[in-house]
Amino acid sequence: MQYYPAPEQVIGMDELITAVEAAFVDHGRGRTIMPPKVYVPLPGGDFRTMPSYIPSLDVAGVKIVNVHPENRRLGLPTVMALMILLDPPTGEPIAVMNATALTDLRTGASAAVATRALSPVRSGSIGIIGSGRQADSGLVALTRVFDADEVLVWSRTASHAEAFVKRHPDLPVKMTDIETAAGADVLLTVTASKTPLVKDEWVSDGAHINAMGADAPGKQELDPALLVRAAVYVDDMQQAVHSGEVNVPIQDGLYSSQQIAGTLGGVLNGSVHRPAPGTITIFDSTGLAITDLAAAHLARGKGTIIDLPFLQGANTLGISGVHK
Amino acid sequence: MQYYPAPEQVIGMDELITAVEAAFVDHGRGRTIMPPKVYVPLPGGDFRTMPSYIPSLDVAGVKIVNVHPENRRLGLPTVMALMILLDPPTGEPIAVMNATALTDLRTGASAAVATRALSPVRSGSIGIIGSGRQADSGLVALTRVFDADEVLVWSRTASHAEAFVKRHPDLPVKMTDIETAAGADVLLTVTASKTPLVKDEWVSDGAHINAMGADAPGKQELDPALLVRAAVYVDDMQQAVHSGEVNVPIQDGLYSSQQIAGTLGGVLNGSVHRPAPGTITIFDSTGLAITDLAAAHLARGKGTIIDLPFLQGANTLGISGVHK
Repeated sequence: MQYYPAPEQVIGMDELITAVEAAFVDHGRGRTIMPPKVYVPLPGGDFRTMPSYIPSLDVAGVKIVNVHPENRRLGLPTVMALMILLDPPTGEPIAVMNATALTDLRTGASAAVATRALSPVRSGSIGIIGSGRQADSGLVALTRVFDADEVLVWSRTASHAEAFVKRHPDLPVKMTDIETAAGADVLLTVTASKTPLVKDEWVSDGAHINAMGADAPGKQELDPALLVRAAVYVDDMQQAVHSGEVNVPIQDGLYSSQQIAGTLGGVLNGSVHRPAPGTITIFDSTGLAITDLAAAHLARGKGTIIDLPFLQGANTLGISGVHK
Repeated sequence: MQYYPAPEQVIGMDELITAVEAAFVDHGRGRTIMPPKVYVPLPGGDFRTMPSYIPSLDVAGVKIVNVHPENRRLGLPTVMALMILLDPPTGEPIAVMNATALTDLRTGASAAVATRALSPVRSGSIGIIGSGRQADSGLVALTRVFDADEVLVWSRTASHAEAFVKRHPDLPVKMTDIETAAGADVLLTVTASKTPLVKDEWVSDGAHINAMGADAPGKQELDPALLVRAAVYVDDMQQAVHSGEVNVPIQDGLYSSQQIAGTLGGVLNGSVHRPAPGTITIFDSTGLAITDLAAAHLARGKGTIIDLPFLQGANTLGISGVHK
């Protein structure tokens, strides 16, 4: 068994976008196995367990990821993740990876895949609502599929937006008010909001929105009227209804799962219709276990690897350890 | 973060039985969080993901465990397991443990807890149906709570039963036919059978049966008539109905979940009645994530520990790895 302390350092964004897109295509064709995420509440947060299997890559695994919003006060990341990889034909655990940064990268790559599939334009303005880790990875990923004339970032905390601008000196990023950012051609929402931030009237016809923030019941970033006006594509139907951008409006009776246009995988493989020109498109992303698995698979055999004993030693004998 | 290659080597069976019993008591009082196991089918087997949280121990975690019945042909264990421990107040992953032997140990300890709670006698004969790893750990655990005059082991493959006898030279173990083994005062069934092995008429009034083998839909070891005649106690109601000894008889209409007498945790904390004298008792064990967690918790800070980098390095920065 092997431990990868920093698999993100050996993965290129272009290959990651390709791998994530392939995972969505497999998902759209029903060729992956991915039970819904399981949530366990903890003091101050929760953790989620995300098992999956991708036959086309011959890899299976589980991501374990927490969300503790107050961790920053302790100097810890809000979100930390481990990925365990298993060999499908034997079930042997073959790798443990630090999947903290990998989680950000695959989320950004998912937004890029959705933007390439759904945005009617290939260049223009990018608006970003939020300025945390997933804003960084999302912007970098989007610029691989979209030529940004300008990047308009808004954060509830102005100093966070300023820091974001400084972290991207090579891109035309500037701070704006939320209304201006929301008027961009391509929008990326990456907050932990539980109330709508982006108003319907701020968004232009033909815009594409990557709604990445809502990934648990009670979270939402968009005006429900925007969902009704737009064509909404989800990453996974069951997860989205449970915990995606649509979850609160569905609970409130303002939106129905029947109104969802389809899955991103379905759009990619042609089984779901693309929207009429001028329609606003929304990618409702909850985060798929198969995108984590595809990302982790890319890192195998590369970078810093620490060998760990697993099958060696007493534990393979029937009677080991039982005579204490 | 730390890796424990052999945590089973630092855990004593007596302390493990105590810890597992405490976990069952917490479970019976509704003081644990344990979503049902999630199964992912793989070629030649499956893997299960088992998250849980025990507030009284301030520990959370996930066990990942496969079952691949043909692995022996490849020189690999049928069952291999990893345990990931998390710090509840921050969600930080703190340990990865090889939980392969730990799984056997906690299963044996669970049988011992059930036997102490449900068997009307403290000494007599032990019958064992099956002779694999969980037969070993089960026997060792049972002898901590029950004085064995004789241990009667039956296996479908005689050479396996012979090897079992040789592995326990200090105990009065002998091979028998299945009918004789099934007539013991305390029975332990630890096979992967999908058809009933133990017939109703072989079992004496007042016997206690630990039915450990059935842990997936379609598995069963006992004559359904035996379930109807006995008082059945489950480890967890939802898991047992889904994948325990009762799952096939319930599917076949030969038994009803309404007939289940209660949970082992309920018996231990007094909220579930003990059976009338002379009643056969059955412990239907599917394997609880909280018993894995309690077992892993015992090993913390002991034995061989390999330090692994996790929070160190680039992955805690927002922009790490995204400019590749």
